Amino acid sequence: MPGTSAWTTSSEAASLAGHLGLDNLIYLYDNNHISIEGSTDLAFTEDRGKRFEAYGWFVQDLPDGNDLDAVDRAIRAAQAEKGRPSLIIARTHIAYGSPNKQDTAGAHGSPLGEEEVKLTKQNLGWPLEPKFYIPEEALEHFREAIDRGARADAEWQKQFEAYRREFPALAKEWDGFVRGELPEGWKSKIPVFKPSDGPLATRQASGKVLNAIAPGLPTLIGGSADLAPSTDTLLKGVADFQKGSYSGRNLRFGVREHAMGGILNGMALSGLVPYGATFLIFSDYTRPTIRLAALMEVRSIFVFTHDSVFLGEDGPTHQPIEHLPALRAIPNLCLIRPADANETAVAWRVAIERRGGPVALALTRQSLPVFDREKFASAEGLARGAYVMAREKGDSPEIILIASGSEVALALEAFEKLSAEGVSARAVSMPSWDLFEKQPPAYKDEVLPPSVTARLAIEAASPFGWDRYVGPRGAVIGMSQFGASAPYKVLAEKFGFTAASIVRQARELLGRR
Amino acid sequence: MPGTSAWTTSSEAASLAGHLGLDNLIYLYDNNHISIEGSTDLAFTEDRGKRFEAYGWFVQDLPDGNDLDAVDRAIRAAQAEKGRPSLIIARTHIAYGSPNKQDTAGAHGSPLGEEEVKLTKQNLGWPLEPKFYIPEEALEHFREAIDRGARADAEWQKQFEAYRREFPALAKEWDGFVRGELPEGWKSKIPVFKPSDGPLATRQASGKVLNAIAPGLPTLIGGSADLAPSTDTLLKGVADFQKGSYSGRNLRFGVREHAMGGILNGMALSGLVPYGATFLIFSDYTRPTIRLAALMEVRSIFVFTHDSVFLGEDGPTHQPIEHLPALRAIPNLCLIRPADANETAVAWRVAIERRGGPVALALTRQSLPVFDREKFASAEGLARGAYVMAREKGDSPEIILIASGSEVALALEAFEKLSAEGVSARAVSMPSWDLFEKQPPAYKDEVLPPSVTARLAIEAASPFGWDRYVGPRGAVIGMSQFGASAPYKVLAEKFGFTAASIVRQARELLGRR
Repeated sequence: MPGTSAWTTSSEAASLAGHLGLDNLIYLYDNNHISIEGSTDLAFTEDRGKRFEAYGWFVQDLPDGNDLDAVDRAIRAAQAEKGRPSLIIARTHIAYGSPNKQDTAGAHGSPLGEEEVKLTKQNLGWPLEPKFYIPEEALEHFREAIDRGARADAEWQKQFEAYRREFPALAKEWDGFVRGELPEGWKSKIPVFKPSDGPLATRQASGKVLNAIAPGLPTLIGGSADLAPSTDTLLKGVADFQKGSYSGRNLRFGVREHAMGGILNGMALSGLVPYGATFLIFSDYTRPTIRLAALMEVRSIFVFTHDSVFLGEDGPTHQPIEHLPALRAIPNLCLIRPADANETAVAWRVAIERRGGPVALALTRQSLPVFDREKFASAEGLARGAYVMAREKGDSPEIILIASGSEVALALEAFEKLSAEGVSARAVSMPSWDLFEKQPPAYKDEVLPPSVTARLAIEAASPFGWDRYVGPRGAVIGMSQFGASAPYKVLAEKFGFTAASIVRQARELLGRR
Repeated sequence: MPGTSAWTTSSEAASLAGHLGLDNLIYLYDNNHISIEGSTDLAFTEDRGKRFEAYGWFVQDLPDGNDLDAVDRAIRAAQAEKGRPSLIIARTHIAYGSPNKQDTAGAHGSPLGEEEVKLTKQNLGWPLEPKFYIPEEALEHFREAIDRGARADAEWQKQFEAYRREFPALAKEWDGFVRGELPEGWKSKIPVFKPSDGPLATRQASGKVLNAIAPGLPTLIGGSADLAPSTDTLLKGVADFQKGSYSGRNLRFGVREHAMGGILNGMALSGLVPYGATFLIFSDYTRPTIRLAALMEVRSIFVFTHDSVFLGEDGPTHQPIEHLPALRAIPNLCLIRPADANETAVAWRVAIERRGGPVALALTRQSLPVFDREKFASAEGLARGAYVMAREKGDSPEIILIASGSEVALALEAFEKLSAEGVSARAVSMPSWDLFEKQPPAYKDEVLPPSVTARLAIEAASPFGWDRYVGPRGAVIGMSQFGASAPYKVLAEKFGFTAASIVRQARELLGRR
């Protein structure tokens, strides 16, 4: 952990690691007293050791980080410590041995330079050549790790073969897990919802899906940043993951969104199917970790509920506006905003089957109808990012209504009204731009025919980015401003999210009154 | 500070407040042991008091938060404490007095309900009517504040009148400050750069502007999250703001981007002209505070340098991609990405003169030419968000090149090449979508004539959102993927940010080879 930089962003994780008593975790604090601006004393004078003791950590102070025996003893003591993580604070010197740059901020962001490297080597009694000199003793020490690793691997393989003979089914399960396969038949438990199951918020549908698949998907593990009841992400009848009982699958992250994202990524790297939940507004606190998941190409699943102004009374500080486009802009993140319970079920399947990148689900607080899929197209269309939900009469639509999530129900209502007026309209559900962009051009043109330029998007979020799909002759019913505190139906009227308002704007786009 | 929620996000601020010894700051910790998921013990068992002691705070523990005399004594002790902020940990009970809901998580997110309110009142010996009962004693106590406030105000006015008689010039300055006016003549110090001043990174130009205007703008105050040398935001010859010497104007935020944003907002609310700097990639850590500035309509200035993959060797973890669109999506945030030193100077003027919302400046690490403004249009065009930098030959352009920041120089180079080939091209500098959208339609159509559909945008960032300006027949040279670690000129070749690549794509758009 260099200087101060990881210090503040890691504090959530450190607090949780202390709570969970993770005694296989050791932080080494490279306490060189130097930050980019100068001495750490310029801004950072807290008692580091005491803070970590407050987190429940075992803290050791090393006055000389170059005393290798002392470092070795401290690491062994940390490994021996039971029931709490360890912090080793080692007093070090940046640019150690450099006659002109040791203990200076100048050595933080820039290389020493040719001349100073020479002076440093002279000062340390090292040979000037070769340029990248590796002392024989260090090389030998590191090379011991090769044999040691080979021996440990052989030993483990031997043990595992014995295990495989004794428990062939479990061993097979393990092999599948290591290869990143999902257990056979896990998908069969994904529920199908009937219209009579509604009205149902997509967060509730999500909770039902999670609980239905959890027994058949033992690598599914997750939790929430202190919003489990609100995000509907608790696995019922499943134990908590807590200090001393690490077999549980319900994680209690506490109000620590940043740490939650980092932990999901670590679990995803190990082959688990991890999910973490909070309100969409708080996705801002997880962005750096979502971005790392996207960059590392791991499938962490972020569950973001209360996904629009329609969360209602909590008001504009809690109402997401820019968050959908801000997430869509992250390369390799698959954002999905399902329109009803069945789209939510398909979204979970797509999320869990995804390889090579994270998924974010945007779910509603408010109840939504469960669409009659005899009447409308199958929710399987979600997997293609966008699909024709309700088709026009005749050869080609005059206008296309495009919506996501909770606004699809409104679009369908407007579709009915327009059809009744004799307007040939099409309604498209567009839960995921990312999935849609991956489709072949022919499919994209089939859903959004280029010849149809009267297009109206409806989404209770910033319209930023929608130009891509509505084009210069289209329009967007979105939120170009912050929200307001009121019951959601009042907000829907105020901000124009009603079937009547959609119909009015559709008529305008078509040049009719 | 309710439960745990402000607890983790406030830790950066708490550490800095301890460092700065802010003894006029008192946190009251409503220690009710309840979070949304249940007992705080589910996730949060650190020693809160000890953590704050580690930050250098004065900590008091109150076993009974309903003991009003004890609360009163604790607050007075906190006020009397010199040289450090105070934390008062008061053991309280959520839904106090409610026979069925006290000390339960159910009382956290939901109201008690009619029946339970009645039972609570009975239990506390309160009258059942009126529904919103305010005890006379409480009312009287609060009403005392009206007289006390009036007396304090009168006293202050009297003192200030005396001050005004003695120091009329300073009093006038103060009045201007309170009215939110900027001191006369402050703008005259903004430098104008000559082409021979270049090449110059816009972060360097920004540093020169800041240092030129600081003496004439005493309310200008700011700093960086441990990146002052890299972001070029240190005011030279100006003292630090540190414990015991609070008249300095260089703030040392440490690696605490979230706290930095919150502090800027507080200073902006008090009428100061505050700025805070970090790398654009770390804007993710400040988003919640940028959003609050936008919502509260205060002019905090965020300086984000190293604004593209062209920061080079630090690689993809440090190279912003989605950050420009993610910031553009925030309502009421004015993002400006100036193209050269003179646009940077105008950007600072626009930022400081803005009312009613925050500004973010995106500045380069790498050097850029200072454009010859005899040859190209004046940098004053920045104030309108976008302007024609180099105009086509003839009545109407065949193609429009649109660029921001470091890519404007490339666009101008491509403009020259295309012109030499006989293509009638126009080059538009577009530093701010927000400012451009505020222009009258006639101006927008003048800069980007709707009839010209061959449009090529060049910006070293996610192309997300550019459809708005390039339209369905245009194209974007942007970054649809994460970056890579290499010197910036290598990256420019690899990712197609060269005049040759722009010319090639322009020819393609025009259907030429």
